[in-house]
Amino acid sequence: MGKKKKSEDFPGAAYGFTHPVSTLLRAGRGFSLQDADPGAKPGFGGGKSDGRKALTAADEHLDDLQERLYAQARSGDDPARVLLILQAMDTAGKGGIIRHVIGTVDPQGVELHGFKAPTAAEKRHDFLWRVERRLPGAGMIGVFDRSHYEDVLIGRVRQLAGADELERRYGAIRDFEQRIADEGTRIIKVMLHISPEEQYERLSERLDRPDKHWKFNPGDIDERLEWDAYMQAYQKAIRETDAGHAPWYVVPANRKWYARVAVQHLLIEALAGIDPQWPAADFDVETQRRRLEDARHVG
Amino acid sequence: MGKKKKSEDFPGAAYGFTHPVSTLLRAGRGFSLQDADPGAKPGFGGGKSDGRKALTAADEHLDDLQERLYAQARSGDDPARVLLILQAMDTAGKGGIIRHVIGTVDPQGVELHGFKAPTAAEKRHDFLWRVERRLPGAGMIGVFDRSHYEDVLIGRVRQLAGADELERRYGAIRDFEQRIADEGTRIIKVMLHISPEEQYERLSERLDRPDKHWKFNPGDIDERLEWDAYMQAYQKAIRETDAGHAPWYVVPANRKWYARVAVQHLLIEALAGIDPQWPAADFDVETQRRRLEDARHVG
Repeated sequence: MGKKKKSEDFPGAAYGFTHPVSTLLRAGRGFSLQDADPGAKPGFGGGKSDGRKALTAADEHLDDLQERLYAQARSGDDPARVLLILQAMDTAGKGGIIRHVIGTVDPQGVELHGFKAPTAAEKRHDFLWRVERRLPGAGMIGVFDRSHYEDVLIGRVRQLAGADELERRYGAIRDFEQRIADEGTRIIKVMLHISPEEQYERLSERLDRPDKHWKFNPGDIDERLEWDAYMQAYQKAIRETDAGHAPWYVVPANRKWYARVAVQHLLIEALAGIDPQWPAADFDVETQRRRLEDARHVG
Repeated sequence: MGKKKKSEDFPGAAYGFTHPVSTLLRAGRGFSLQDADPGAKPGFGGGKSDGRKALTAADEHLDDLQERLYAQARSGDDPARVLLILQAMDTAGKGGIIRHVIGTVDPQGVELHGFKAPTAAEKRHDFLWRVERRLPGAGMIGVFDRSHYEDVLIGRVRQLAGADELERRYGAIRDFEQRIADEGTRIIKVMLHISPEEQYERLSERLDRPDKHWKFNPGDIDERLEWDAYMQAYQKAIRETDAGHAPWYVVPANRKWYARVAVQHLLIEALAGIDPQWPAADFDVETQRRRLEDARHVG
């Protein structure tokens, strides 16, 4: 899981983390998904109620950084932006991350898009075409609920693409992510990692509760039956596409509260790395003050 | 401001309102903007801290209704959706409404769009073209930060359109809103109403604080100088386009907290009017339970 650098000089220190989450959960060189424990809570000493408090406590921190990022882009010459990519098996909690982490951020600073099975129109283009169109603008936090990784995950498991095509796609993804990183996009790739036992419990709950039936899809069981093949596809995709400018994080997600606070800090750390600044006024403040005084009495 | 019907049978009764907000603030027949007090807090007895508490307390109520609306649309045959249109003079608090009211809703159920001055491409189409493209999907809460009303507000004040063209636009808006209402869209049109004195204070603050400079635009003073003309344009637009299926609400906004809790309840009341229901399962629950048991041991 990467090297752990001890330092108080990271945002999570104030919220109960022993190390930066981007260090704790990074799937770096030699990463093995089989050895990652979906029930763990790396770097966080507390329990559920501590985790929930930490999530609420860091809201403002994330909010402040997001507002600065947004403001900074208004000056017109800073392209910095963030792209959070969420991938996971069904029920792993993507929706909860969006609701409880992304949902705390000003909606005006977020561009969220969910990728479903490609439409007929989308299929007439290369797999990255529809993704390119949804990239966040400068100053924004883009969030992808599923992404181009589906094309090498379900694409591999369901043999929608052959071996050569899959190889082409890994290469195309590497080039694509290199380019958008060079353009000023801070990329965060997250796999929410749950165990098959935990998924069983969550699917059971959806079947037990009439108010959860709408969240259940019989196809979820078909995908579950391919669990091992999916894990292999994730392992391969992570190995092929992890990079310093496009890092993968495997976030243990059996405990929803841990996954949420961890992703929150991945965002905070990425934003702190950008270190966005309030832009200088592009007008003369004194002149505008005088104009406002002259316009004091209207209406 | 419309008839006030005394009844405990409305959601706001539990949060400190004497009457439904959609009754209190409706700009109905014979509405006069001159008589509307931007500093008032119609139907709410408490002060700022009560208002803030009320906003937080009703979060879950709004959240539950929104989730039901979203779920209901998943069955595929209920087109119900909500469209909240926000219009206001600069600094009146549209951003705060989006952040503090819309921001409490699951981002997956919201489609937010801000309309700026039309681009060259947009100008090659009729003024409703770009609006049509941003209408919310079934089950969604659409939010327009400015809208097609700019074309009869700044359009009128700055004489970007002549008298005949303005008349055509009012008619086009009436037809357009009638059609989308017939399609299943619950429309809520809000004018956030501040006084020129309050705007002076807010613009001054933006000039005083370097971390607020990015929110200031010298053009805001140009618009301020046309205050009376804007009020006339609002009055005219409201008279021309207020309808039972497309109501206007003039929300006093000198007190930010009041405007926020009022818009929250306009949403809650609209959703309660739809009364969205959890959809029935479109699969046989027992069959799926058996399939899940058969798939219990995977991975």
